[in-house]
Amino acid sequence: MDQRTIKWGIMGCGGISGSFAKDLKLAEGAELTAVAARSQEKANRFAEQYGFARAYGSYEEFLNDADVEIVYVGTIHPLHKEQVLACLEAGKSVICEKPFTINAGEAEEIARVAREKKLFVMEAMWSRFLPPLVQTREWLAQGLIGDVQLVKADFGFDAGWNPEGRLLNKAQGGGALLDAGIYPVSFASMIYGAQPKNIMSSAHIGETGVDERFSLLFEYEGGRTAALGGAIRLNLQNDAYVYGTKGYIRIPNFLFAKEASLHVYGEDAVHIQDDRQFAGYKFEAEAAMACLRSGKLENDVIPLDETVGIMDTMDRIRRQWGLSYPTE
Amino acid sequence: MDQRTIKWGIMGCGGISGSFAKDLKLAEGAELTAVAARSQEKANRFAEQYGFARAYGSYEEFLNDADVEIVYVGTIHPLHKEQVLACLEAGKSVICEKPFTINAGEAEEIARVAREKKLFVMEAMWSRFLPPLVQTREWLAQGLIGDVQLVKADFGFDAGWNPEGRLLNKAQGGGALLDAGIYPVSFASMIYGAQPKNIMSSAHIGETGVDERFSLLFEYEGGRTAALGGAIRLNLQNDAYVYGTKGYIRIPNFLFAKEASLHVYGEDAVHIQDDRQFAGYKFEAEAAMACLRSGKLENDVIPLDETVGIMDTMDRIRRQWGLSYPTE
Repeated sequence: MDQRTIKWGIMGCGGISGSFAKDLKLAEGAELTAVAARSQEKANRFAEQYGFARAYGSYEEFLNDADVEIVYVGTIHPLHKEQVLACLEAGKSVICEKPFTINAGEAEEIARVAREKKLFVMEAMWSRFLPPLVQTREWLAQGLIGDVQLVKADFGFDAGWNPEGRLLNKAQGGGALLDAGIYPVSFASMIYGAQPKNIMSSAHIGETGVDERFSLLFEYEGGRTAALGGAIRLNLQNDAYVYGTKGYIRIPNFLFAKEASLHVYGEDAVHIQDDRQFAGYKFEAEAAMACLRSGKLENDVIPLDETVGIMDTMDRIRRQWGLSYPTE
Repeated sequence: MDQRTIKWGIMGCGGISGSFAKDLKLAEGAELTAVAARSQEKANRFAEQYGFARAYGSYEEFLNDADVEIVYVGTIHPLHKEQVLACLEAGKSVICEKPFTINAGEAEEIARVAREKKLFVMEAMWSRFLPPLVQTREWLAQGLIGDVQLVKADFGFDAGWNPEGRLLNKAQGGGALLDAGIYPVSFASMIYGAQPKNIMSSAHIGETGVDERFSLLFEYEGGRTAALGGAIRLNLQNDAYVYGTKGYIRIPNFLFAKEASLHVYGEDAVHIQDDRQFAGYKFEAEAAMACLRSGKLENDVIPLDETVGIMDTMDRIRRQWGLSYPTE
């Protein structure tokens, strides 16, 4: 197996980029080549903190760094489309934070350009690469819980009242659905391998005009359902359950999963534990590098068509609430 | 306090009546006076097994037993209305299994007659009287978790495929909503003290024409919601969660609750455990007797207007599914 090193760049030096960078250092064959921020000072500090070779105070200069092969885009969602397209124009592969874009139209545009340019692009849905989620897909593929009939997943946290902060700020793509909801919505998509036929939803839109919490009820073919929820001003138990005719799978704190259990009725429960001492972004980085090394342009675990489908589901939900963003 | 004994009768000698009778023996001041079934043999067996003084093979004879002061009605739901009204006609107080009736119209009729005749009537929503649920109401009344914004509760079990059995049989009032759904729907009603403003729902209607599983999304004033589910052919984790702005309450296996925990953010969790060695129907029997002794015609924990409101919510849900029963 070709284990050539892959030269990484990071666009955006905020919190999530830091978390990713910290894990990237642990990913086998990753070279920490360059970072970019809107200010040189911020970029310098980030590069020094996480061990990147070069720091740029402008995205243009960064994209002219011919060494960078793949870019992790960790900026706020409204900037994703423009920045991913700029990376592709510069001939670079991309993994882009979720939500991948503000809406499905933007995601489709990226998918189209990536295919035209034959460059690797992947939504940074890191949770899917965590060992308990990989194990969950294996249990499902083996049919151990029978036919899945109900999926439940929530992601809710209380970020406090900070109307100027990103989460509650409409101009910055704030709101619970885009920020937190992407996880349960993506989880349901992963389990069913499809987007919902019908969507029922409820949202509490707060003073800043974005959704602070929401509940979703998805219907799929064959009477299968998903009951999902999320919040940015309410802590929830962020566990996921997959209920089948023969048993169920439970994933505590599913998006950060360190464990999962398989409960087949009439048999002893099987529990798996991941004792990793790092956050877990390493796995998505390694998955992206494996694609680059083997010449694959998409990752089977989260292909672009599914990313577009998930964004379309998010659009359908927001239409029910009458919630749109300034860039739309 | 007047601790006079109360003479009990039981109508219907099926499984739930047996469970109730077993606990009734433990209830202070309860006298096991008479039971009735459609066959004398069945009534005799039941009376002997649970220690009742007299057994009747006809409901008419049973209702003529002047000693019986309060009747527990434990028959199938389609018979409730007629039988509760017959009890009231005979001058007897009643506690009637849930669902109280098939629909709100029937429940209203019972409430009207009970008030006319000044007789005590109560829905046998036994779970509300279990110590962990009593504690939950106290925690809520003290405002310990702040404003409640989301209630979650499921009750799902897999009763197998028995199309002739009561659960899947439309003529016998089968279906997941009436049989299992009454618990989460009633739980949400208890927490919010109101019926939902808007209801969204999904049901899987099976071959026998009744719902085998369902999901509900209730909206209340102020953006509060409840996400509920139930099934008669799918096992679920039957836990309830009440999420507030300052913390949450968790009640594992909520309808049979033996424990509950209070989680106020920033404080140590409080856990209460009920080590009872009996099912827990005793508490509702004692609550009913306390009302009889003090001359109250309804129990504040589950007053008739709320029972009617809950049945109306069930009606609204069934209308969304186009599900009606032969007696409607």
